Amino acid sequence: MSFSFEVTKTDRSGARRGRLTTPHGAVETPVFLPVGTQAAVKGLTQEALEALGAEILLANTYHLYLRPGHEVVRKLGGLHQFMSWPRAILTDSGGYQVFSLAELRKITDEGVRFRSHLDGSEHRITPEKVVEIQLALGSDIAMVLDECIETPAPRENAESALKRTTQWARRSRSYFQECAQRNGEMHQWQFGIVQGATFADLRRESARQLLDLQFPGYAVGGLAVGEPHDVTCEMTGEATALLPKERPRYLMGVGRPEQIADYVALGIDMMDCVLPTRAARHACLYTSEGRVLIKNARYAQDQRPIDANCSCSVCRRYTRAYLRHLFAAGELTAAILATHHNVHFYLDIMRLIREAIEFGNLANFSSVMHARYTAGPA
Amino acid sequence: MSFSFEVTKTDRSGARRGRLTTPHGAVETPVFLPVGTQAAVKGLTQEALEALGAEILLANTYHLYLRPGHEVVRKLGGLHQFMSWPRAILTDSGGYQVFSLAELRKITDEGVRFRSHLDGSEHRITPEKVVEIQLALGSDIAMVLDECIETPAPRENAESALKRTTQWARRSRSYFQECAQRNGEMHQWQFGIVQGATFADLRRESARQLLDLQFPGYAVGGLAVGEPHDVTCEMTGEATALLPKERPRYLMGVGRPEQIADYVALGIDMMDCVLPTRAARHACLYTSEGRVLIKNARYAQDQRPIDANCSCSVCRRYTRAYLRHLFAAGELTAAILATHHNVHFYLDIMRLIREAIEFGNLANFSSVMHARYTAGPA
Repeated sequence: MSFSFEVTKTDRSGARRGRLTTPHGAVETPVFLPVGTQAAVKGLTQEALEALGAEILLANTYHLYLRPGHEVVRKLGGLHQFMSWPRAILTDSGGYQVFSLAELRKITDEGVRFRSHLDGSEHRITPEKVVEIQLALGSDIAMVLDECIETPAPRENAESALKRTTQWARRSRSYFQECAQRNGEMHQWQFGIVQGATFADLRRESARQLLDLQFPGYAVGGLAVGEPHDVTCEMTGEATALLPKERPRYLMGVGRPEQIADYVALGIDMMDCVLPTRAARHACLYTSEGRVLIKNARYAQDQRPIDANCSCSVCRRYTRAYLRHLFAAGELTAAILATHHNVHFYLDIMRLIREAIEFGNLANFSSVMHARYTAGPA
Repeated sequence: MSFSFEVTKTDRSGARRGRLTTPHGAVETPVFLPVGTQAAVKGLTQEALEALGAEILLANTYHLYLRPGHEVVRKLGGLHQFMSWPRAILTDSGGYQVFSLAELRKITDEGVRFRSHLDGSEHRITPEKVVEIQLALGSDIAMVLDECIETPAPRENAESALKRTTQWARRSRSYFQECAQRNGEMHQWQFGIVQGATFADLRRESARQLLDLQFPGYAVGGLAVGEPHDVTCEMTGEATALLPKERPRYLMGVGRPEQIADYVALGIDMMDCVLPTRAARHACLYTSEGRVLIKNARYAQDQRPIDANCSCSVCRRYTRAYLRHLFAAGELTAAILATHHNVHFYLDIMRLIREAIEFGNLANFSSVMHARYTAGPA
């Protein structure tokens, strides 16, 4: 088994510096995963992602199952070969997308029936099916199917979703292990997902139930969906307090630049978010001084780079005035350059955070980021 | 004056191998100019264009005059600095765009009044104004304002447009020379444009009239706008037969891959066309075997590169199946990869053509391309 995870340093806050080893290379943690929903990060080539230093991407099981189809990806040699990405890939379970994108969904204990958001075709997925799809995709890390609910949720909804999430996790785990026995060596790690909405006791209960299933890593799901940041942190803390210290913890779908260090301080090792890529396409650039809404007329003749403190290839070459022009003119190149910068910014935050943990000054880093990003966009 | 043009080899057909020297580097001719209408080639960064070996780009005076405005570009150090492109730039005069994009245009001998296609604002341009705009942009080669007419055109329309084009060329030339006397050394070359629609005698007359004005280079305009290829060739040949052998000739707005060698054989040194970039965004890929319409279902599991004979970074890394998926999924990365390949293909045709001229087998190259591109798309 070519997987391992080691925590190399822990600071007083609980932040962890570590290394996740996968069959597709090592991943320094804490790590941010750029989102490549449909086997592509919008606006970046794989060459660009390599140059940016991305060590792991997220791709989406729901989307790839529907298009091009997991059997097609399997035939083409798996997701790494299909998209020509030699480094690590994590696939989410598609649970969140089934609940947010699919139409006419019907949930039973058995699984979910839904209609594709692409063509209305009918599909039925189960926890076992989701394992199968991800084995076909051949991702390094596969998430189990969970039940995602809207928040704020009444307690009874949160309880029943938690119960089902644990049942599905158990079935996912045993089906995965069955496949492992059948296939011999597995080139994939399976992660469980802690649910429980915004109820601290349910978060603890969910974590405890999943611990029995001995996942090599654990995610915290169903957060950062509209609740206040301190609630996200509280719920995350409830989970990480119980999760095994020697295994990676992944907080799904976060976060804003100023929030990332907070999650790391709660013992989170992995994060993903569409924010840097989506914001880039909407002309919102992240900088060491805060957000820059580059379409603003004040940048029309601004010859400075997006961020004077940034070492990315966009900041080394292009001016704010040029970026503003590209967005104003609706040029494709605007999205390419902005995405490159924003993803660099996020990966750079993670580099700084990893360094801060090693030098024991993560708290300082966090307060600086909060100050810069609560002043509002420039 | 840091400009020069030398023809280093001529073959029997009349094809010329040359070198255009500009203040922003040398340009090996025959050359294809990728189109960067609004100071950006859609889907490519300047880094990518450098890696592709582009030595000169085309940008558009009409578009840059309207947005961001030539005075803004001047303040920001000129077009090269604005877009961070250290190599050569040719700006067209905007004549074609005024006639094809602008609204409510009114042409007089003095110039053109029109409304912006962007915001309806009213503008008045004259041949002198167009010289001024391009001096502000600081392009290496500036085209004079010409009158473009719809084709097929009645002879009397062609005659009157030709007459006005020559008058405007004369005013452009003398205003440019006036600026040169005022400013000292000019870092720009001004090219005249031969008009005359599809009337051979008018083309000859237009060329002769422009010769008197002693432009350092000459373009052939108003072609490839719907007339048959052999008419384009006939009209081009009428012009090049009269144009001075020691000066560069530029055929504007061409062409299809299989037509390029024909134009070169007529003594054309420079060409520009939106085809490789526009076709790429519409999933039409050019290959050594003909067009590949990559959205076609037959490519869904095709593990070959776009073109097995292509050495571009896209063909070295990605499969047709992946490209097809990206287009089917509407991913931004599809346009980036497809554009990169198509521009490489065009620049590679030019490399092969330059080689063919040196070895004296351009005719053979041309017939191979015709055979491959008349078979229809794959």
